[in-house]
Amino acid sequence: MADYTAFDVAHLANVELLTPKFEESLWFFKDLLAMREVTRVGDSAYLRCWDEYQQYTIKLTASDAAGVGRTSFRAASPEALERRVAAIDGAGLGEGWVEGEVGTGRTFLFRDPDGHEMGIYYDTERYVASDEDRPALKNQASAYPGRGVNARRLDHINFLAKDVEANGEFIAAALGGRESERIKLDNGKLAAWWFHFSLKSYDVVYSDDWTKHGNRLHHIAFAPDTREDILKGADIFLENGIHIESGPHKHAINQTFFLYVWEPGGNRIEFANAGARLLLDPDQPVVEWSEEERKKGQAWGMKTIETFHTHGTPIV
Amino acid sequence: MADYTAFDVAHLANVELLTPKFEESLWFFKDLLAMREVTRVGDSAYLRCWDEYQQYTIKLTASDAAGVGRTSFRAASPEALERRVAAIDGAGLGEGWVEGEVGTGRTFLFRDPDGHEMGIYYDTERYVASDEDRPALKNQASAYPGRGVNARRLDHINFLAKDVEANGEFIAAALGGRESERIKLDNGKLAAWWFHFSLKSYDVVYSDDWTKHGNRLHHIAFAPDTREDILKGADIFLENGIHIESGPHKHAINQTFFLYVWEPGGNRIEFANAGARLLLDPDQPVVEWSEEERKKGQAWGMKTIETFHTHGTPIV
Amino acid sequence: MADYTAFDVAHLANVELLTPKFEESLWFFKDLLAMREVTRVGDSAYLRCWDEYQQYTIKLTASDAAGVGRTSFRAASPEALERRVAAIDGAGLGEGWVEGEVGTGRTFLFRDPDGHEMGIYYDTERYVASDEDRPALKNQASAYPGRGVNARRLDHINFLAKDVEANGEFIAAALGGRESERIKLDNGKLAAWWFHFSLKSYDVVYSDDWTKHGNRLHHIAFAPDTREDILKGADIFLENGIHIESGPHKHAINQTFFLYVWEPGGNRIEFANAGARLLLDPDQPVVEWSEEERKKGQAWGMKTIETFHTHGTPIV
Amino acid sequence: MADYTAFDVAHLANVELLTPKFEESLWFFKDLLAMREVTRVGDSAYLRCWDEYQQYTIKLTASDAAGVGRTSFRAASPEALERRVAAIDGAGLGEGWVEGEVGTGRTFLFRDPDGHEMGIYYDTERYVASDEDRPALKNQASAYPGRGVNARRLDHINFLAKDVEANGEFIAAALGGRESERIKLDNGKLAAWWFHFSLKSYDVVYSDDWTKHGNRLHHIAFAPDTREDILKGADIFLENGIHIESGPHKHAINQTFFLYVWEPGGNRIEFANAGARLLLDPDQPVVEWSEEERKKGQAWGMKTIETFHTHGTPIV
Repeated sequence: MADYTAFDVAHLANVELLTPKFEESLWFFKDLLAMREVTRVGDSAYLRCWDEYQQYTIKLTASDAAGVGRTSFRAASPEALERRVAAIDGAGLGEGWVEGEVGTGRTFLFRDPDGHEMGIYYDTERYVASDEDRPALKNQASAYPGRGVNARRLDHINFLAKDVEANGEFIAAALGGRESERIKLDNGKLAAWWFHFSLKSYDVVYSDDWTKHGNRLHHIAFAPDTREDILKGADIFLENGIHIESGPHKHAINQTFFLYVWEPGGNRIEFANAGARLLLDPDQPVVEWSEEERKKGQAWGMKTIETFHTHGTPIV
Repeated sequence: MADYTAFDVAHLANVELLTPKFEESLWFFKDLLAMREVTRVGDSAYLRCWDEYQQYTIKLTASDAAGVGRTSFRAASPEALERRVAAIDGAGLGEGWVEGEVGTGRTFLFRDPDGHEMGIYYDTERYVASDEDRPALKNQASAYPGRGVNARRLDHINFLAKDVEANGEFIAAALGGRESERIKLDNGKLAAWWFHFSLKSYDVVYSDDWTKHGNRLHHIAFAPDTREDILKGADIFLENGIHIESGPHKHAINQTFFLYVWEPGGNRIEFANAGARLLLDPDQPVVEWSEEERKKGQAWGMKTIETFHTHGTPIV
Repeated sequence: MADYTAFDVAHLANVELLTPKFEESLWFFKDLLAMREVTRVGDSAYLRCWDEYQQYTIKLTASDAAGVGRTSFRAASPEALERRVAAIDGAGLGEGWVEGEVGTGRTFLFRDPDGHEMGIYYDTERYVASDEDRPALKNQASAYPGRGVNARRLDHINFLAKDVEANGEFIAAALGGRESERIKLDNGKLAAWWFHFSLKSYDVVYSDDWTKHGNRLHHIAFAPDTREDILKGADIFLENGIHIESGPHKHAINQTFFLYVWEPGGNRIEFANAGARLLLDPDQPVVEWSEEERKKGQAWGMKTIETFHTHGTPIV
Repeated sequence: MADYTAFDVAHLANVELLTPKFEESLWFFKDLLAMREVTRVGDSAYLRCWDEYQQYTIKLTASDAAGVGRTSFRAASPEALERRVAAIDGAGLGEGWVEGEVGTGRTFLFRDPDGHEMGIYYDTERYVASDEDRPALKNQASAYPGRGVNARRLDHINFLAKDVEANGEFIAAALGGRESERIKLDNGKLAAWWFHFSLKSYDVVYSDDWTKHGNRLHHIAFAPDTREDILKGADIFLENGIHIESGPHKHAINQTFFLYVWEPGGNRIEFANAGARLLLDPDQPVVEWSEEERKKGQAWGMKTIETFHTHGTPIV
C-alpha cells in the first residue's frame, strides 16, 4: 500500500444525493439540518453546512429513485492532484476532466470498481459570507444557525459495494486512503472496510452490498459538535415525523456516537460525533473485528439494527 | 514557508513538566486527571492518558522551580525525521542525537530560539494494556477510567517567548508547522502565534513573554471528549482545592471550549474541547486578530483574565 | 413562619415584562428563545414556552421604560387560594379581584412592600396544541422547537427591593414561601434572599436595590433541559448581537448553571439549569452566606460581575 | 382519590436491596456509582449518594436471592405521618411501629397488597460531612466524587405486582400518591402505573408481574445531573463488565433519558435524567397510553427490550 507520510486527498469534499421527493428532501436539509441553499441549477439544489469553507457539500438532485450521484474529493495540492490522477488512470478507471460545479475547479472524473461516480479536484472558491450570514467570530465560515442538529460539516460516506475488497484496495491505491478498521467474516471476506485520509478515523467506508446491484449508498454522515446536538436531533426528528432508524448509541467500530435517520427521499443520513478521538499515530495498525466480535452489537450492547443489512439506496 | 501538502511532524508527543511539589503534582495528574503512572526513573514519573498509543506523554520531574523541560515531537516517517533534522541543523539549533526515554526511539535534540529544549523522533513503542487496564473495545489504548476530567490525550503546548516572531518562524521552517491564527498588536508585533501540523487547529503556540526571561511555559493542554467533561472537571477542581484560573468559557481564537487551572507545582494546565472543528482546507489562510478585536475578550464576552499576562513558569 | 407540610402556591405562573423596544424584544423571545406568541391584546404580546401547560407565561408590553409589570402565582387549590388571599389581606396589601387575562381565571391583585404588582389565581385554561404545534409525545404541551436555547419553562423571578427583609417576610407570610438560601452582610442586613414553593430550590428572590427606587426587576429566568442548551444559547446570542452579561458559569448559591443576557429592551434574562438538585427535605435549614464567603465569587471562581449591582430595570 | 393540595409523603427515602453476591454488589455501588458506605450492620451495608441529606438511601443486604426488602418513605411533617398511618391502618395493611435504622426515626411498617415491605417515618438525622468528604460549597451534602455516573440521589422505585390496579390504588389512598401516567391494555387492565408525591413526575411505579409471584422488584433508579453522566456511565459499565440491558435512550412515558443495567446481584438499576421537566400543574390530568401507542417503542423508536417483561428480582 501507499506510503502514509502524507495524504494526497485532503478530505471528502461533496456528495450528490438523488431523491424522488425533492421538496421534502430539501425541507429536511434546510429546515431540520439548518443547511443553507447556495444556489439552484436545473433540478439540483446546492447546500452547505454553517462551518464549511467551500461553496457547497451536498448537491441535492430530483431523480426517479434515491441514491448517490457524484462524490468528490479535494486534493491537498496541485501536485497531489496530478499524482492521484496518474494512479487512477493507472487503474484504468479514469474518465477524464470536466469543469467543476459551483465554485469547484476543474475535476477529474472516475468510477470506483463498483461503479460509483467520483471526482477529484484541487482548485476551489472559498465561501464568503454575506451580511445575512456573517459570523460573529471571523474564524468561522458563516453564522451559527442554532437550530436543528447544528451539523458543522459533512463527515464521511459509506458506500455499498458488491466487492468490498476490490473497492477498498482501489481507495488505497488510487486515492492514497489508509485503512483504519475492518470486519472480516469467518469465510475470510471483508464485510466492511473503513478508510481515512488524515487524523479523522474514517472518511470513506465500503460495506457489503447484499443485493450485488452495484452503485448503491449505505449512508452519508454529518458531524455536529457534541453528543447533545445528536440527542436534540433525535427529538427534532421525532417531532417532524422523520424515520429514526437507530440510535442515539455508540459504535464499537471507531467509537463514534451516532444517530441514523432516513431523509424523506429514502437516503440514510447519519449524525456522528467522535469526541477527541483522532488517529495521531502515522503507523496505526488496522483494527480487525471478527464475525464473533461483531455479534456483541454496538459499544453499549444494542444489537445492530437489521435494516442496516436490508436498506440501501437505490432500493432494489 | 513550507509546502503544506504534507506534514513531517505527526503530532506533539510528550512534554517534561518541572515541579517544586512533586508529590502534590503527581496526585493532581494521577488522581484528578486519571493519568496512569507507567514508570518512575530517578526524580521523574512517566504518565499517560487512557487513549494515548505511546508509553507516556508527561514526564513529571521534581525540580527547584516549576517550568517545562524537553518537549518532543513524533515525525511522520523515517524520511520525515531526516528532513526535519536537516532543517533544524540548517538553522544552527541542532544539539545531536540521544537515546529516547521509556519506549521512545533515538531522538534528535534541539532548542527553539527562546531556549526551550526540544526533541524529535520517529521510532516508538506502542503501549500494550495489561490485564488491569485492558479496554473493552480493542480500538482503544487502555481502559476508560471514568473519573476526573477524562482527558483522552495531550493536545497542545503554549510557550512563552521573548520573540514570538522568531520562534514561530523556526517552528514553520524547522518543523514544518503551519500557522492557523495570530494576534498582531498595533505596533506590528505578534502577541501570540498558533501553529498546527495536521487537521487539528493548533499544536504549538508562542505567546509573548513579558518578562523577556526565556525558556518559560504558558501552559499545556489536554483534550477531553466533551464540554461536559470540562464542566465536571471544574467541580472536581473546586472540591480538591485546585486554583481555577479561568473558565469554563469559549476562546474566540480557534473557538476551543476551555478551562485553565494551576497544578499544585504552579504550571498552568488547560482542558480544551474543539468540537467537530478541524482545519480541513489545505490552503487555509491565517486568521489575524487585531489589538482592537482582542479587547472584546473571549467568545462569549468574558474579559481575558489578567493573570494570563502575569503568570508563567518558572515564576520570575 | 408558615408550616411547610404543604405549599399553597403551586408555582410562579406568569410575568409581565415592559419594554421600550417592543419589536426587538418580541424578536428576542420568539426567534431566539423559540417562544410562541399565543395572542396579541393592545400593546401586549402573550408568549409561552414549548412545555408550559397554561396559555402564557410572559406578557410583553410596549412601554416607555423597561421593567416588570404584574407577576402572578397559581394557587394549588381553591382552598389554598382562599388562605393566601386572607393572608395577603391580613398584611394590608390586597387590592381586590379582577378578571384574569388570556386563560387565567379571576385573580386577586396585591403588591409586595416594595410596590411590585402581583396576582394570585387558581382557575386556569390548559393550552391545547393545534395541528401546527401538536407534540409527537402526548405528555408534552406542544411540539419541541429544536432551536434557540430550547427553554422548557419559566423558572423564577428575582426582584430588586429597597428592603430585602421586609419583602422576603411578606413572601413567607402572605404566600407561604419557604426560604432556601440568603446572603447576610457584615452589618446584619440581608443582601439577597431566596424563596421556594416546592421541590425547586427557588422561585422568587429579593435582591438589594442599591438605588432605593422601588418596583424594579433584577431578572427573570427560564429553564432549559441541559447545560449544553445554555452553551448553545451563548453562541446564538453572540451571533445575534445580544449582550451577554455573565456566564456560562455555575452559581455558588443554589448551584445553578447560568447565563445572563440583556434582552433588547434592557431587561436581564437568565437561563438556569439545576441538574438533578431538588430540595427534598421538608425541614431543609436555610443556607446562609456571609459577606466574606461571597467574595469568593461564583462556584468556579469567576468574580460576580459588577453590573449585577449596577443594572436593573427600569434603569434609574 | 386524595386531595392534592399537599403531599403527606415528602419523598422516597430508602430501599433495601437483597443480593446473593454481596461483595460484587458492594463494589458496584461504591466503585462504579461512587456511593459512600456509611456503616455496616450485620450482613448489611448502608450507602448514600453524594448529595443526599440523610444518613443512607440504600441498605445492601447479603441474601440467598436478589430482590427488594423494605422501602421507606419520609413523611412531610409529624401531622402528615399521623394521617398516613391512619390511612394505612384503615386499609388493614399496617404492621406497627419499629425503631428506625441508621439515623431514621421510629418507623411505621406496612405492606402493599402485593406483599412488598414498606415503612414510613418523619424523624431523621441529617448527614454531617466529615473532614474527608466536606464539600467546597456549603449547600451540598458531601464532596462531589467526580467519578462513575455521579448519581446525585435516589430517584424512584418500580415494583412488579400481581395486580397493578390494587397496588396503585393503595399508594393513592394510603400514601396520598398522585398518578401521573399509566398504560391501559386493550383488555382494560393497567400494565403499569406511575405515581408521584410532588413536582417530580414519578416516585413509585407498579408494573405487571407476569409471574404472579408477588413481592418482586422491577428496578430502582438514581438521578445523575446530566444526560452526559449517563453516557459516561455506559462507558464505565462497558469497561467493568456490567450487563447493560437497555439504553441510553429516552422513555416516551414521562420522557426520562435512561440507562438500565443489572448490578452483579441481578437487580435492575436505572439511571434517569428528567431535564427541566416538572409536574407544576396541581391538576395535571393523568396521561394514559394504549397498547397500540406503546407498540411504537421508546421515544426515539427503539423497541422496548424484551427482558423488561422477563427479568425481575427475585428471579422465579
